[in-house]
Amino acid sequence: MTSPVQISDIVAAFETLRMRRPLVQNITNYVAMTVSANVLLALGASPAMVHALEEVEDFVAIADALVVNIGTLSPPWVEAMERAVLAANDLRKPWVLDPVGCGATPYRTKTSSELAVFRPAIIRGNASEIMSLAGATGEGPKGVDSAAGSDAALDTARGLARQIGAVVAVTGAVDYATDGTRTVRIEGGDALMPLSTALGCALSAVTAAFAAVTDPMTAAVAGLAVFKVAGAEAAQRCRGPGHLPAELCDALHLMSDASLRERARIGPA
Amino acid sequence: MTSPVQISDIVAAFETLRMRRPLVQNITNYVAMTVSANVLLALGASPAMVHALEEVEDFVAIADALVVNIGTLSPPWVEAMERAVLAANDLRKPWVLDPVGCGATPYRTKTSSELAVFRPAIIRGNASEIMSLAGATGEGPKGVDSAAGSDAALDTARGLARQIGAVVAVTGAVDYATDGTRTVRIEGGDALMPLSTALGCALSAVTAAFAAVTDPMTAAVAGLAVFKVAGAEAAQRCRGPGHLPAELCDALHLMSDASLRERARIGPA
Amino acid sequence: MTSPVQISDIVAAFETLRMRRPLVQNITNYVAMTVSANVLLALGASPAMVHALEEVEDFVAIADALVVNIGTLSPPWVEAMERAVLAANDLRKPWVLDPVGCGATPYRTKTSSELAVFRPAIIRGNASEIMSLAGATGEGPKGVDSAAGSDAALDTARGLARQIGAVVAVTGAVDYATDGTRTVRIEGGDALMPLSTALGCALSAVTAAFAAVTDPMTAAVAGLAVFKVAGAEAAQRCRGPGHLPAELCDALHLMSDASLRERARIGPA
Repeated sequence: MTSPVQISDIVAAFETLRMRRPLVQNITNYVAMTVSANVLLALGASPAMVHALEEVEDFVAIADALVVNIGTLSPPWVEAMERAVLAANDLRKPWVLDPVGCGATPYRTKTSSELAVFRPAIIRGNASEIMSLAGATGEGPKGVDSAAGSDAALDTARGLARQIGAVVAVTGAVDYATDGTRTVRIEGGDALMPLSTALGCALSAVTAAFAAVTDPMTAAVAGLAVFKVAGAEAAQRCRGPGHLPAELCDALHLMSDASLRERARIGPA
Repeated sequence: MTSPVQISDIVAAFETLRMRRPLVQNITNYVAMTVSANVLLALGASPAMVHALEEVEDFVAIADALVVNIGTLSPPWVEAMERAVLAANDLRKPWVLDPVGCGATPYRTKTSSELAVFRPAIIRGNASEIMSLAGATGEGPKGVDSAAGSDAALDTARGLARQIGAVVAVTGAVDYATDGTRTVRIEGGDALMPLSTALGCALSAVTAAFAAVTDPMTAAVAGLAVFKVAGAEAAQRCRGPGHLPAELCDALHLMSDASLRERARIGPA
Repeated sequence: MTSPVQISDIVAAFETLRMRRPLVQNITNYVAMTVSANVLLALGASPAMVHALEEVEDFVAIADALVVNIGTLSPPWVEAMERAVLAANDLRKPWVLDPVGCGATPYRTKTSSELAVFRPAIIRGNASEIMSLAGATGEGPKGVDSAAGSDAALDTARGLARQIGAVVAVTGAVDYATDGTRTVRIEGGDALMPLSTALGCALSAVTAAFAAVTDPMTAAVAGLAVFKVAGAEAAQRCRGPGHLPAELCDALHLMSDASLRERARIGPA
């Protein structure tokens, strides 16, 4: 069985991304803003953080993709997210949903569900978030970390993907991307990664950058694979999690097509 | 005279913290969010940044401790702080108050005073903040740095602790933790630490993590001691303040019971 | 032709800044807050992030300078910016405007223009932002990066400076500071700098710190020159953009009068 997405596909997407330098609009949480911007810049994309109701739709019109991350949600931000998502759909711009902490409180579950209805190109979350979003579990995640492994959420993710019509990326020690029919397993990364805050949020932004230049399934796999490769390289230069975001940016900045081709570990699942 | 809190107590608290991995809810300022989350992760706790009125009480119910930091306060946040604090008290969850810049503006002094009434387990601030909060000085701090040394605020801190019924931690080149009767002096750290923003805020979050696993007095001393040890180790690897947050996280991540036991410098005051 | 601002002027301003440690109030965007605070601390200034309507004017009264950065603007923040700016003018405190993304959306252009009327001491932006603010171009910048080089905006910057009565700093691979009559060209820096988010925002804060201790023209040139020197030194220690903010802080912290005098590259333009 061959992988539904090939390494040659993700290398091609990576080349296109660097050539086009897509403008990625981020409506994201306060914790993730700086690291998301730096990761996007290191990858070769152009980030912007724009959330005010007064301009959110105007900005979607010039952006190439949008990421909506509910990490530090509040009503004015949720309203901006909804407007941005509607504008993105009108303009056929891809958008990515990161349902941070879905399941931890009713407000997060409700907001995530309401946003998911607007058909994101990609939903990226950890196992608990994906399972909560799918309504498959009554047990919310502890904080914003995932209690369960990504394997446990794979069937749920497939169902959610079919239900929403989106690619669902479940990330953890092993990552999966599925459109409900085809599923890709992505390995790599490092155990230090969950010890550095908001890297999952930055990863969602990375998948949005790829969604600006290729189809959602290839974009999700490319984003996850590039991040796993860069994370593993970054961790090799660290003795703890402190320098991981900086090293991750350096690894992304220095990544070549050849090293991505050689180190990406993707396969069917 | 022996110290009211022994090194064996703080090592035991440190072991318990790592075993239980407490979930610490942070209602904190924009500047401190990322470094607080990273410091908590490196310590072995689980951070969450949750402040919306729509969920703040729901989250207290699943959190093990709460830190309320007024650094970039505004009315909706202050309302959320009050609700969170009331919920924490109802549920007997410990909470920590960081009255950033108390004394610098009437709004900060008023907000700090109003929050302090709700009996935090621990109040952590620099000398000026503690003195302002106690109403012991008409001269506010310059910005959010402390003009006075922690020694100058010690008597005031003891009085504040008795008045509120909280442990008060006054931090600076030398730190003190007092419950009004017993006082512990904690040495260590490095002169580079005040040159890296929001480390005091992160320290408040650290004391909250300890408060989830032990009594407030032990928690305050343990938090201050662990931070002083990690800060000193971190600074040895730095030529300036730039890499200090990252090195601090690495030092926390790599800290062993043995190194804490050997390097913590606490005593009676 | 000699430079309108001499290296001896900027070295003198640098010495004064370190002696006085000016308190710089920042009303800035979420992405830039932490790096701005760290850069100001490393430079030798004292940062504070204060934006609530309830205290913004009280804080201006104790601050030595103010920076207003619209990067993640929203109506309550814009209202606070206006109040702070009025208070600064009343109290004759210098303030700096950073019109982030001016031209990208009507809301940004409108807000920037309305703030510029209140006569900032210094306006700092990239070529697209300055050209948009001057109304000299109908083509907005792509996101918050500059599409055009700073050279292209120089004449526009001179006109804007005369019109507003402010010093205008246009930054890019080469920087310019102009009061409409006199113009200084500042070289240095590194191509890695635009790949690390919010360094331009931090630079605006640096010029505000200098404006607290010298006239606007000298302050702008000193801020740009110090940043170019520190940026070049920082980049030499980096293999990518990841560690650049930390290295920049170290370079600022370690900068001596002698190294500034030797490495600053300023001249007439």
